[in-house]
Amino acid sequence: MSIPAYADVEEAHGRVRRFAHRTPVLTSESIDRIVGGQLFFKCENFQKAGAFKFRGAINAVMSLPDEGAGRGVATHSSGNHAAALALAARMRGIDAHVVMPENAPDIKKHATEGYGGRIRFCESTLAAREFALNQVVSETGAIEIHPYNNFHVIAGQGTAAKELLEKVSDLDFILAPVGGGGLLAGSALSVAKLAPKARLIGCEPEGADDAYRSFEKGEIVPSTNPETIADGLLTSLGELNFAIIREKVDRIVTVSEESIIRAMRLVWERMKIIIEPSSAVPLAAVIEGKTGHGNKRTGIIISGGNVDLKTLPFHRYQ
Amino acid sequence: MSIPAYADVEEAHGRVRRFAHRTPVLTSESIDRIVGGQLFFKCENFQKAGAFKFRGAINAVMSLPDEGAGRGVATHSSGNHAAALALAARMRGIDAHVVMPENAPDIKKHATEGYGGRIRFCESTLAAREFALNQVVSETGAIEIHPYNNFHVIAGQGTAAKELLEKVSDLDFILAPVGGGGLLAGSALSVAKLAPKARLIGCEPEGADDAYRSFEKGEIVPSTNPETIADGLLTSLGELNFAIIREKVDRIVTVSEESIIRAMRLVWERMKIIIEPSSAVPLAAVIEGKTGHGNKRTGIIISGGNVDLKTLPFHRYQ
Repeated sequence: MSIPAYADVEEAHGRVRRFAHRTPVLTSESIDRIVGGQLFFKCENFQKAGAFKFRGAINAVMSLPDEGAGRGVATHSSGNHAAALALAARMRGIDAHVVMPENAPDIKKHATEGYGGRIRFCESTLAAREFALNQVVSETGAIEIHPYNNFHVIAGQGTAAKELLEKVSDLDFILAPVGGGGLLAGSALSVAKLAPKARLIGCEPEGADDAYRSFEKGEIVPSTNPETIADGLLTSLGELNFAIIREKVDRIVTVSEESIIRAMRLVWERMKIIIEPSSAVPLAAVIEGKTGHGNKRTGIIISGGNVDLKTLPFHRYQ
Repeated sequence: MSIPAYADVEEAHGRVRRFAHRTPVLTSESIDRIVGGQLFFKCENFQKAGAFKFRGAINAVMSLPDEGAGRGVATHSSGNHAAALALAARMRGIDAHVVMPENAPDIKKHATEGYGGRIRFCESTLAAREFALNQVVSETGAIEIHPYNNFHVIAGQGTAAKELLEKVSDLDFILAPVGGGGLLAGSALSVAKLAPKARLIGCEPEGADDAYRSFEKGEIVPSTNPETIADGLLTSLGELNFAIIREKVDRIVTVSEESIIRAMRLVWERMKIIIEPSSAVPLAAVIEGKTGHGNKRTGIIISGGNVDLKTLPFHRYQ
């Protein structure tokens, strides 16, 4: 597998911008006052299908050669990639087969079905998911689009940071959450090229700190029994992602569950926008003082806004 | 009391725009598809202090002559007007005295205190509130700024519709929630001048339908025992407000609690923005088919985004 470079992000942007929203960059005087700095939020919660994942999915789907594309695409995912891939496939007029564990939240099932995705349910183990995916691929000839360990997905995700840096100059820090590493690796390509003096920091829950440990150790440490409300950040790093992250990311920091929920509430209450727990992890790092100090200019990529409104965490940590 | 005209909205805008946000007008393809029309949301949930109320408050506070202003302003309110007035007063460097019932939600108390408002608690009856307010005024010499039955407040509230109409042309309908009638009356002045062919419709919960009944009867019918989740729409119409509404509003429609909560959830889930229940009432009217039909262009004023995240209604009407 070859590793994408910034030129691939640029090329991806040519495709992504035709289909995706150029999401706004929002600021909040009151949160700035609380944290003692200047924050610029790149709001991918307003992206199509509610998360940055659409950028990678549409880039991957639109990059497929015509003959292969007709057989459709496939993935296993219980999260935002599933809905994003379904929508991207529909835009190209091809099928999307999504393997999902039976216990996936209804909201994810409905979103994926709503975009025309064909769901195949399986048990919730990784082995069952991979087995079911292999079956789908061999039955249909669909092309697998991995949620993050994929050249075109990484290049597509890099377009969010590219847009942020085209809009806001002189950032001291750029923060992004890290799960499988698609967003962080893509962002790294854009930051290294467009804001080489800025420090890119990956932000991760303490309860799912495999990227932190991988970064420290210099090799991928798998995510085992992660426990966090940030349901988009449970997976292990991909190889492509880690190769880029190792080279171009300044550091990875971890934050507590309490900080994540506090940061999420702060954004909901002060900015009146809905972000999912994974999106609150970078602001949690700022609040915990993990990212540097002083009156700095910090860009934060808000990864998505897909939450189940029936199970919100705001009764905790009053 | 004299009744404001559009010229007063224009004059108000000269003051308001120096202090308030020019809030965005958002659209949603997916909600448009659901309702079969084109909706334009003027998002006062992003306004300072989280609601359109800041427009009226800042206009009233900045319109005070210098000698009187020094003694401060006063009001009784358990809602968005309290925080808005406190913030407006702080911007002018004067005191705001707010009479609030002891059982007001913590979130409102904190917001008002956070902007430097001086709260005086009283029992929750209207009589107790008016008595306490009279006491404050006679003790301090503060000038009362009524939440809606006030010339400058109405003129200030009209600037939201003015901005909407300056941004979006050819609207067939403009919808606003109606409680005391500040927003609806102010909007009426702007709509009559800037979009005379458009129909302005006031939207009200069935459980607090005093404006509907007042409009039908031709005289103010007081709000008695209102019951609705739309906590900003409980009060009776003011006289100034009703004089304008009678003349310039096309009609008032009512909606069920279920529709309000469904509309609120739709906005939260599809647009990823936080709106309070009162703000969902106009969209509820569109969903119920109360506002006309066909592929119309409809402007909706989203009145605010102040909700208590611990007591959300999304478990109802699944």
